[in-house]
Amino acid sequence: MEHQMLDYYAKDLIKKAGIKIRHSFSSELAIESKSDANDLVTNIDKEIEQYFIHHIRKDYPGHLILGEEGFGDNISALDGYVWMLDPIDGTMNFIHQQRNFAISLGIYKDGVGVLGYIYDVIHNELYSAQKGHGAYLNDEPIPVLESTTISEAIIGLSPNWIIPNRRIDNEGLIKLVQDVRGIRSYGSAALELAYVATGRIDAYISLRLSPWDIAGGVVIAQEVGAVATNLNGQPLKFLEQDTFLVARKSIHETLLSNYISLK
Amino acid sequence: MEHQMLDYYAKDLIKKAGIKIRHSFSSELAIESKSDANDLVTNIDKEIEQYFIHHIRKDYPGHLILGEEGFGDNISALDGYVWMLDPIDGTMNFIHQQRNFAISLGIYKDGVGVLGYIYDVIHNELYSAQKGHGAYLNDEPIPVLESTTISEAIIGLSPNWIIPNRRIDNEGLIKLVQDVRGIRSYGSAALELAYVATGRIDAYISLRLSPWDIAGGVVIAQEVGAVATNLNGQPLKFLEQDTFLVARKSIHETLLSNYISLK
Repeated sequence: MEHQMLDYYAKDLIKKAGIKIRHSFSSELAIESKSDANDLVTNIDKEIEQYFIHHIRKDYPGHLILGEEGFGDNISALDGYVWMLDPIDGTMNFIHQQRNFAISLGIYKDGVGVLGYIYDVIHNELYSAQKGHGAYLNDEPIPVLESTTISEAIIGLSPNWIIPNRRIDNEGLIKLVQDVRGIRSYGSAALELAYVATGRIDAYISLRLSPWDIAGGVVIAQEVGAVATNLNGQPLKFLEQDTFLVARKSIHETLLSNYISLK
Repeated sequence: MEHQMLDYYAKDLIKKAGIKIRHSFSSELAIESKSDANDLVTNIDKEIEQYFIHHIRKDYPGHLILGEEGFGDNISALDGYVWMLDPIDGTMNFIHQQRNFAISLGIYKDGVGVLGYIYDVIHNELYSAQKGHGAYLNDEPIPVLESTTISEAIIGLSPNWIIPNRRIDNEGLIKLVQDVRGIRSYGSAALELAYVATGRIDAYISLRLSPWDIAGGVVIAQEVGAVATNLNGQPLKFLEQDTFLVARKSIHETLLSNYISLK
């Protein structure tokens, strides 16, 4: 496996970052707002990103880093190796719940995801994949996803998109709520991707995600047969914010064509 | 503590039921629908309820049992001791996810909740309370809830009530989605009550719950200062389905008066 050593290295870094995060619960959180009052960031988000960057720059000096907190590189193309990192995906959960957040990391080579990781720190569950070699939850292989139908599906979807909003026709999503078996909203894109990969939910829809939110999870989800695109059905570019849909293959096209209508 | 021995007994029964549920994952689930296609029940729901009833009838023959699966007693008044049991709260999660469900149990004496339990089987987290003696998560006391504001609150709320429906004016709930920090939907009333009691979410709203869904959680939530009523602001009766709101005291009244308008 071409990236075996890099996989060992990344997993070790992630586990050590997880220990740092767990230790942080005994100290005081410093919470700031970013673009709006609910786009929160803490000192821990920043420290964990800097921890990754410090080690990656030392041990893989040719690699670039795209990190949520902005301490990485300015990247305009995905040549070579790029690490896409969200040190704490689900910061609101991290602050309010001290659970239901994850470290999200994807390592891309010339724009192709070769390694993906989602680490549910509190439950010590590491979802991982090497492209072409299957996905794992800790040491257990994650089975390839079977097909399902819309009426049996559980969908991850934030109520912010179900109410009138400027990004998507919410009537289509109201119909979706009516047609599916259930809707869940967990507040972490990375964990919802992990849930899709393990078949706990059948799709996850978002109107605005950044590359670091999804880079790791997409590698994992694709290894078990899920399909990930933007909400126009186009391939993901991983260079800017975009809409997002990941779903079991059997319902991906139906979700796009029957329920999604962007403004 | 008046109910100490009953508390030991109930906890032991719950833990043993949890072991049975965990063992069930290696055997085949038989899934049936009840009132509609998405009101699911499995052989495990039924077996666990019968397990409780068998032991309670043997060891506490004077006590009555109100159970979701209907193997208990027909109850028209809450005189004496009544056990209100949902053997698996969040059956859809149980089936699809093998997690995010709970055993929910409240023991009421002459209509007053004296003991409450929510057992997150998979994470081995037992939330419990004896009325007047505080609430616990496993062996750790759960702190009394501090105050919060609507704009900082995370609310547990199913999207089924945010879309047009026949029970509540959804415009009020759309405004709520806009005003709060975040909405979560986990698919288990008992776990959402446990989340309110531990401050991970700040309120939980439902338009239709049965006594066994909330009986245990209400005892726990009240011990840490949360307020639980129906959506008319009236005390809960625990004899029939009703609407439901549990919230930190500081936002309970505002939620009712500014956002809730029943049809």
